[in-house]
Amino acid sequence: MKTLEHSVLLRVRYSETDQMGTFYNSRALEWFEVGRTEWLRHSGVSYAQCESLGLLLPLVEAHVRYQGRARYDDLLRVTMRAKMESKASVKFMASVVHEGTQSPVADGWTIHAVVSAEGKPMRPPAWFTELFQHG
Amino acid sequence: MKTLEHSVLLRVRYSETDQMGTFYNSRALEWFEVGRTEWLRHSGVSYAQCESLGLLLPLVEAHVRYQGRARYDDLLRVTMRAKMESKASVKFMASVVHEGTQSPVADGWTIHAVVSAEGKPMRPPAWFTELFQHG
Amino acid sequence: MKTLEHSVLLRVRYSETDQMGTFYNSRALEWFEVGRTEWLRHSGVSYAQCESLGLLLPLVEAHVRYQGRARYDDLLRVTMRAKMESKASVKFMASVVHEGTQSPVADGWTIHAVVSAEGKPMRPPAWFTELFQHG
Amino acid sequence: MKTLEHSVLLRVRYSETDQMGTFYNSRALEWFEVGRTEWLRHSGVSYAQCESLGLLLPLVEAHVRYQGRARYDDLLRVTMRAKMESKASVKFMASVVHEGTQSPVADGWTIHAVVSAEGKPMRPPAWFTELFQHG
Repeated sequence: MKTLEHSVLLRVRYSETDQMGTFYNSRALEWFEVGRTEWLRHSGVSYAQCESLGLLLPLVEAHVRYQGRARYDDLLRVTMRAKMESKASVKFMASVVHEGTQSPVADGWTIHAVVSAEGKPMRPPAWFTELFQHG
Repeated sequence: MKTLEHSVLLRVRYSETDQMGTFYNSRALEWFEVGRTEWLRHSGVSYAQCESLGLLLPLVEAHVRYQGRARYDDLLRVTMRAKMESKASVKFMASVVHEGTQSPVADGWTIHAVVSAEGKPMRPPAWFTELFQHG
Repeated sequence: MKTLEHSVLLRVRYSETDQMGTFYNSRALEWFEVGRTEWLRHSGVSYAQCESLGLLLPLVEAHVRYQGRARYDDLLRVTMRAKMESKASVKFMASVVHEGTQSPVADGWTIHAVVSAEGKPMRPPAWFTELFQHG
Repeated sequence: MKTLEHSVLLRVRYSETDQMGTFYNSRALEWFEVGRTEWLRHSGVSYAQCESLGLLLPLVEAHVRYQGRARYDDLLRVTMRAKMESKASVKFMASVVHEGTQSPVADGWTIHAVVSAEGKPMRPPAWFTELFQHG
């Protein structure tokens, strides 16, 4: 059983830089979100659909390692993998590199609870867990 | 009849700077929001209370003039005035200056529709319009 | 003489929403920035190149009209036009619509001073003003 | 030898919420930054002073655990402790709770390299390391 990998390109926005001349640290978590959004869409069910079906994925933990600078307008590739972490949680693994040189910018992971629209932890339905099973 | 004026201090966050070494332009609108929040609290009904009472104030228009730089950790004073703009809209006027020197950073205004929790335009109740009448 | 028009697609990020369920108001200015970045690249000189050539474009004024909601993951089209506003300033006009329905989300404009790397107002060189002359 | 602890109050801004009705996950890192800024000021040398003295503290790693919701306008207390992590890095430990109930919102830590204005790793001078030694 393999882990589905999917990547997306984005450019560093001016609004994402800070006075150190590189991206501000919290943007990495926003880029991880862009990666998750596209990973889920690619896997067959977008996160917007998940929410409209009453399944939400709030973060319970996040980890980021900062590996290199990225400046305004740099083209970055965000690559995601994902797996069920427990019966009611899922883990997304992220890596951000410069598209041209492949030099690393940041990597890390986020763990998400699977909860209902009311915020209650839930055992995810089969259509959801199957997104994380490949091969 | 006077316009109630109220001000609040804030410090420029590192996350609000950009690689030009001053604050990124969109932060001015976020500081205006901090000013509105404190203006409403000072006037007697917080915006959180407004929302819980089913009255929302989405923006319909915003205007900002950028007047001077503000760097990380600079202490700024955001001063707000407000008035009913029409029977179902309200206008907040904002001014941001350096607390020490009073040198200007930005000023501007926002116009907000008064809408119900369902997003429908509404004639605001008396408890709301009275917040904007002073003296 | 025509005004060059250029547009770019983007998706609303979760980080750009707020508890009203639509995008937070200041994000419009960040989307305008994405539009300017791509307009300049399309016109022949990227803004990153402008900065490395010692020409910066800090905002002096911004105006936004909010016309409709946009939710997480909605696909938006940001369309930009631009012109020299005075001998040392430039104006970008922006419009944001839903890509599917063309229903409007926001429009507005920003005026930028042309300044040197040291922040001094400057008469822009020919390679810059020519970007704004078409046809 | 004790670790200096310092805390600061802040209110959740509307711009920090997302459509789930709580704060967007990356804001926790921005609040940690507010905590670091005030911890350093309280310890005797502000981070703005550090930067002007040629000592920068870029992040190399960040970790966040999300423990509870925080809504717009909630009053939060960010408490920080810090220590030298190695000869050329420093660790800040953060905890965010609701000021009224003390119920937890998030905790975590960040590790920062000590680098020169040119971005080179450096052995920090005594005036810096002494900030982290108490009692």
